[in-house]
Amino acid sequence: MCKLNDNYLKLQGRYLFASIAKKVANFKKSNPHKKIISLGIGDVTQPLAPVIIEALHSSVDEMGHKDTFKGYAPEFGYEFLKNAIIKGDYNSRGVDISIDEVFINDGINADAGNIQELFSVDNKIAVCDPVYPVYVDSNVMAGRTGTYDKDAQRWSEVIYMSCTPDNNFVPDIPEENPDIIYLCFPNNPTGTTVTKDQLQLLVDYANKVEAVIVYDGAYEAYISEDNVCHTIYECDGAKNCAVELKSFSKKAGFTGLRLGYTIVPKELKCSGVSLNRLWARRYGTKYNGTPYIVQRAGEAVYSETGKEQIKKQIDYYKNNAKIILEGLKSAGYSVYGGVNAPYVWLKTPNNMTSWDFFYYLLEKANIVGTPGSGFGPMGEGYFRLTAFGTYENTVEAVERIKKL
Amino acid sequence: MCKLNDNYLKLQGRYLFASIAKKVANFKKSNPHKKIISLGIGDVTQPLAPVIIEALHSSVDEMGHKDTFKGYAPEFGYEFLKNAIIKGDYNSRGVDISIDEVFINDGINADAGNIQELFSVDNKIAVCDPVYPVYVDSNVMAGRTGTYDKDAQRWSEVIYMSCTPDNNFVPDIPEENPDIIYLCFPNNPTGTTVTKDQLQLLVDYANKVEAVIVYDGAYEAYISEDNVCHTIYECDGAKNCAVELKSFSKKAGFTGLRLGYTIVPKELKCSGVSLNRLWARRYGTKYNGTPYIVQRAGEAVYSETGKEQIKKQIDYYKNNAKIILEGLKSAGYSVYGGVNAPYVWLKTPNNMTSWDFFYYLLEKANIVGTPGSGFGPMGEGYFRLTAFGTYENTVEAVERIKKL
Repeated sequence: MCKLNDNYLKLQGRYLFASIAKKVANFKKSNPHKKIISLGIGDVTQPLAPVIIEALHSSVDEMGHKDTFKGYAPEFGYEFLKNAIIKGDYNSRGVDISIDEVFINDGINADAGNIQELFSVDNKIAVCDPVYPVYVDSNVMAGRTGTYDKDAQRWSEVIYMSCTPDNNFVPDIPEENPDIIYLCFPNNPTGTTVTKDQLQLLVDYANKVEAVIVYDGAYEAYISEDNVCHTIYECDGAKNCAVELKSFSKKAGFTGLRLGYTIVPKELKCSGVSLNRLWARRYGTKYNGTPYIVQRAGEAVYSETGKEQIKKQIDYYKNNAKIILEGLKSAGYSVYGGVNAPYVWLKTPNNMTSWDFFYYLLEKANIVGTPGSGFGPMGEGYFRLTAFGTYENTVEAVERIKKL
Repeated sequence: MCKLNDNYLKLQGRYLFASIAKKVANFKKSNPHKKIISLGIGDVTQPLAPVIIEALHSSVDEMGHKDTFKGYAPEFGYEFLKNAIIKGDYNSRGVDISIDEVFINDGINADAGNIQELFSVDNKIAVCDPVYPVYVDSNVMAGRTGTYDKDAQRWSEVIYMSCTPDNNFVPDIPEENPDIIYLCFPNNPTGTTVTKDQLQLLVDYANKVEAVIVYDGAYEAYISEDNVCHTIYECDGAKNCAVELKSFSKKAGFTGLRLGYTIVPKELKCSGVSLNRLWARRYGTKYNGTPYIVQRAGEAVYSETGKEQIKKQIDYYKNNAKIILEGLKSAGYSVYGGVNAPYVWLKTPNNMTSWDFFYYLLEKANIVGTPGSGFGPMGEGYFRLTAFGTYENTVEAVERIKKL
């Protein structure tokens, strides 16, 4: 008789964004004539850059002719893309990465959820609070998080590193040593980040306690300030402790095209075994490669024209972030982030709960945002707005909020 | 201190196809002037059909304009594709499937590896022997297979159902009851299949012992005979026990484009819990959707023109299978499969081992095939050839083998 993985039953509620989508759909059904502006889920709105469209068309043509047709991709990705990534994202920052340390995937989400498979169920994870839900949920499914305390909204076997205005959103070194540390900088959901010196302290700590850092760098392209790392490997010793996840979703508008990559350095060992080799084995067994045409689209991002066009797109969203940040400030809100990331994190007015503010904003201003409490208890009383709307909608949304 | 998932260390050798690719690369290096014909890995060689290329171009154009750009796809797939699948692959066979039972993915491989996550580590799996390696390897990684006996080439906690000429490649009901049963019909690697009546017996058995069947129907499009199910749901009661995995890879040449789907019926329960709901939760957490342009390409497969063009392509490969089957027969080989599947399974001559025959064929005829023993001990002494080469190469390969 087949028995269930009971850990799945421990999962709390629906996945945050699915849950919001459902609530918004219900609101739309009851209010069909209201123009809703979504600054909720971090989905881009600008079309793919022309250079990417060209790369897609030309690679689609290749797929239609027998001499240029491509079947299964090389299991860890095409060399043309891996080389472009190494040159564009690492060598340009003074970091050496070898080609077999790069694993091309279909976006960060799957690898962020799957990387924990390499580790024993006995390991204890540490996450920032608030935090992107996938890190914890994938560990709940694996049975690594203990029991859930509904009042505290915390798992018994998870170490939480609070990130609030009190510590300037820089996680403190935890009192209990974790085995796996999830970090995301620039941060989702708070839109804040850490300096290179602050990240170096976390890397040093991980090496000291022999923890593995899972470093989510999805928002790297939005970094504006100089003293912020574009890759964790800018820190000394990071190759001995960190896996890095990167994505084309927010960098080049690939949310609907799906492309990302994971770096697993060969120096990185766990129980004396190279994680690179194990991760390669997982890929070879459970993943069948990213579409050729999407990998060609990714390559185009690193061309000279690509870089120019992508920069324009990122500047467009950065300008939106500035509009939100300044607009809310002038309306009297306490706001954070938005400088090195496409997210603005705001304190809800009058001590409203995050969900109360969600409904308030949806009903009074027809704006969809994301309740901070959905990212963890320290997010309670906060709210996330994204800069990924159109310029026009962003301006209108800020005007609506100001009028409340 | 981070500790490893030790189950990964139990994995035997390299993943089969990666291992073959390496051996072939070495042979090529030492023999740069020899023309190697690969009838090894099941990768297609014909370009995508014109109707698919058109669908890709037009959806790529949509991605380049702000009014038609698509970001994140709906989490379980676009309705246009799910509806096309339901109509084309199920309603046409008299089977009702509802839209929230269909999960669009990027090919069977990932879901075939990941579906076991829903089940307790205590479950015992049954697989055919020989068998596609992913089913067992993903369960090894999860710690469900016990210890490996190198002499017997079998895992202590896996139930093996032999498929040989003796039982006409129809797995017998196992003596010990399994909790999860992996089936693949038409079969990879043997190219054989079961009749509807034979499949019904397996479904009845699964329902009796409350086992879940993971049914891999990747080669459904190659079915030629009338008394063979195109979906397991043609069997009575299958919705109470079976998950079905389907792919566009072999149906429409999508090995490099990546598209497939998984059906998890709402009736299907495990420990009293609906697996559909749990699988939805896994998707929502660990998968971020299949590219829009690839889903549009999939939709085109079901158009009238698409069906015609796809049929031509499948007939082309079926003709290759016939050439291999008849050529080898006339050369005195014992051959199986090749009628309802793109694979021909042959008995090696003179009791050679599968790997001896692999090297013999590579060195003497410069043909790459797949050693049967790579699929399990009952595959020892057998060898797999695929019909996915070009017509010209297939004819030449058969001539070369005849001359040996």
